[in-house]
Amino acid sequence: MRESNKGLLVVISGPSGVGKGSIINVLRERRSNIKLSVSATTRSPRPGEVDGVHYFFIDEPTFQSMIDRDEFLEYMHVFNTHFYGTPRSFVVEEMEAGNDVVLDIDVQGAMKVKDSFPDAVLIFIAPPSLSELKERLIGRGTETAEQVERRFNTAFEEMKLAGKYDYVVVNDILDIAVNKVENIIGAEKSRISRNCALISELSGGSEK
Amino acid sequence: MRESNKGLLVVISGPSGVGKGSIINVLRERRSNIKLSVSATTRSPRPGEVDGVHYFFIDEPTFQSMIDRDEFLEYMHVFNTHFYGTPRSFVVEEMEAGNDVVLDIDVQGAMKVKDSFPDAVLIFIAPPSLSELKERLIGRGTETAEQVERRFNTAFEEMKLAGKYDYVVVNDILDIAVNKVENIIGAEKSRISRNCALISELSGGSEK
Repeated sequence: MRESNKGLLVVISGPSGVGKGSIINVLRERRSNIKLSVSATTRSPRPGEVDGVHYFFIDEPTFQSMIDRDEFLEYMHVFNTHFYGTPRSFVVEEMEAGNDVVLDIDVQGAMKVKDSFPDAVLIFIAPPSLSELKERLIGRGTETAEQVERRFNTAFEEMKLAGKYDYVVVNDILDIAVNKVENIIGAEKSRISRNCALISELSGGSEK
Repeated sequence: MRESNKGLLVVISGPSGVGKGSIINVLRERRSNIKLSVSATTRSPRPGEVDGVHYFFIDEPTFQSMIDRDEFLEYMHVFNTHFYGTPRSFVVEEMEAGNDVVLDIDVQGAMKVKDSFPDAVLIFIAPPSLSELKERLIGRGTETAEQVERRFNTAFEEMKLAGKYDYVVVNDILDIAVNKVENIIGAEKSRISRNCALISELSGGSEK
């Protein structure tokens, strides 16, 4: 008799530039039973992007038929151009195999996942401050001033939804932020609601 | 701007023989900011028990006047003989100083604490199995068969209330159980409900 061995569904969101990707990479290096869900998209691969690693690149009719068969945990149509979605099968199979699955999705997607999987654990990664976030966006040097401003405004809108998450982790020092995410994943496995069989066995007294 | 620095109130319960004391001792060795609340009692000290360390030994009129002044977080009258209670002032002062306070109390006390401190984190320490618990109680060799049976029956009744706790940790291997309690304490500090000021600052945009 042990605590639950079923995997967790962990949703990680946060504004561009906050360092979600770095946190998830370190987390996966530390824990081999954490699997990153790969999203499907209808947009074309950018240089260096590998099908099945960064995204599943599929055409729009294929995406549409997956929608029709309810094969996405969540999906969205961005700027009326491309579709992005989280294929359901990978998530369900890994969780049943006892692996924890991480979804790196935006706040709207996170809310949809919470609706269909109330057991999902939602973690919002926050910058140490809004000014620090702006500096990080500028510091990446990959975007124009206008793009930085747009990303910053989007980030600001997203943070208004942070209160709907279960946890907030400030990414100031990467290792500390990863420790906190690991604590959360560990603690959630001890939650009463995930250990009904254990409680029932101890209090039902089949061994008494 | 950081996550909340206010201390947590952590209630640890579990049946006799489950190893609560060992878990709490290791936890305190690892983390100096964890303080164990010392209960007050009207019973006499047993050999080796030190006033202010194991209990505050006080007489019944003193205990009664503390009840009258609402100076207990919870208290109980055991078997119509002795009083036991958790002095409120120690708990409140340590939490405000940023320390986490652990209460080692029974399930009835835990429920009272949860009523008056809804933010308290309730952890139930469970044995690997009921038969293992019975063996541990017998193995202590400090009690008669009748006492073991009574303790076991009490344990069984207590475990029926485990479902009212926030977390359950099985104490099979001590170090692993302590790790789990540490994860829980760490994770709880990242809970959204404990970080309202942070969320408000990030989404209220005083820096924008």
